[in-house]
Amino acid sequence: MSTLSSDSFSLSPLSTAEVEASEHVHGALAADLRRLVDVAIRTDVDEERVARARALVREAELLLAEEAASGPAGIHFNAEGRSWNWGNAVVGVRNAMAPPVVLNWGEDDTVWSAFDLGVAYEGPPGCVHGGVSALMLDHLMGETASARHTRMTVTGTLTLRYVQPLPLGPVRMEGRITSVEGRKVVVDAHIAAAGEGSDGSPAVQAHGLFIVPRWAHENPVEADIGSLD
Amino acid sequence: MSTLSSDSFSLSPLSTAEVEASEHVHGALAADLRRLVDVAIRTDVDEERVARARALVREAELLLAEEAASGPAGIHFNAEGRSWNWGNAVVGVRNAMAPPVVLNWGEDDTVWSAFDLGVAYEGPPGCVHGGVSALMLDHLMGETASARHTRMTVTGTLTLRYVQPLPLGPVRMEGRITSVEGRKVVVDAHIAAAGEGSDGSPAVQAHGLFIVPRWAHENPVEADIGSLD
Repeated sequence: MSTLSSDSFSLSPLSTAEVEASEHVHGALAADLRRLVDVAIRTDVDEERVARARALVREAELLLAEEAASGPAGIHFNAEGRSWNWGNAVVGVRNAMAPPVVLNWGEDDTVWSAFDLGVAYEGPPGCVHGGVSALMLDHLMGETASARHTRMTVTGTLTLRYVQPLPLGPVRMEGRITSVEGRKVVVDAHIAAAGEGSDGSPAVQAHGLFIVPRWAHENPVEADIGSLD
Repeated sequence: MSTLSSDSFSLSPLSTAEVEASEHVHGALAADLRRLVDVAIRTDVDEERVARARALVREAELLLAEEAASGPAGIHFNAEGRSWNWGNAVVGVRNAMAPPVVLNWGEDDTVWSAFDLGVAYEGPPGCVHGGVSALMLDHLMGETASARHTRMTVTGTLTLRYVQPLPLGPVRMEGRITSVEGRKVVVDAHIAAAGEGSDGSPAVQAHGLFIVPRWAHENPVEADIGSLD
């Protein structure tokens, strides 16, 4: 059994300015990769051009592999209280699989995000995969449960109700804490289409129970780390 | 409101042999891209080499964009009864975001899949994002509900119980139908670590209600299309 503890997080010697400079450089690469992943799904070019594209991709891979960590990106924090999780599947700025989602904290303790889900997120024809909605909502709700990173949480249970198909394109999701009792935090959320002509009615409604792990409750990590999604 | 109907699926003039040849060519490109996405998260190369990698990525993008559809890949089928959903976020062979998952149908009506989740699927440090487990399980369960593609289904509700962290690496998931009543199909499933030393105990347990849409119930599509995830 894998376990998480306060040792799962590493204190980094990087300053916040260095972290942000690195995010700028590597975030631009990830943004390029997202466009490449997208067009690789849509392309109709012949086999010869696919072979040329593959050669370019492999050359880029070898270049980046010249110096690379062997393991995942993890979650890091520095002495200034800045944290980063560059590999995260939802918000990781260096992860081309992540949209990436950027979360906004509303005045009234709602947490929301507006972003685009392109062709790589397809399930039913022209629509967002139901499991992708679950992925995005799970992350949003964990962050919501963390109450602006004042507590660390993990997902306990998550219930999703699929109301109507969600077209690919602009979407908006929003979460809100509905109760807190001891180490248990309950969050409600939904995701909806946000394109032109959308009425904002939920495509997927979600209800989640998030838990503050005992080790985090007893020995809070002094860094800006919230959800352990 | 977006709707799905039997018109959502397009009959393709491609023969099964042509489909498989195309999957071979474009699947190899997607496999290369998965490795590139992975190393882009792990790399420690300097800014100059990132810039060179970006130039290669953009060159590949332009090459693939010379002829490309503007919209998503959709779900297609041919006169031989073969169907394909190349852009699917879980099983799409042309989608670098998809592992891709390959499903196996057991003798006893279980559906299972064993695959690797690498650094691009991270949530908690070193572990699979809870929402990624939801994404993979949702797809598996929809396919399970389709009973070897003898009916078309959409997700109604999905409940996930997170039991323990799931380390990145080899995983195995399995689903089984527990009841069928009219247009409602209930499926139970779980995902577990499958690496060396794993005991196979579930990391995430899932319970889902899948629905055969009224239009699909009344006018079955004559193609091998099951889950509308």
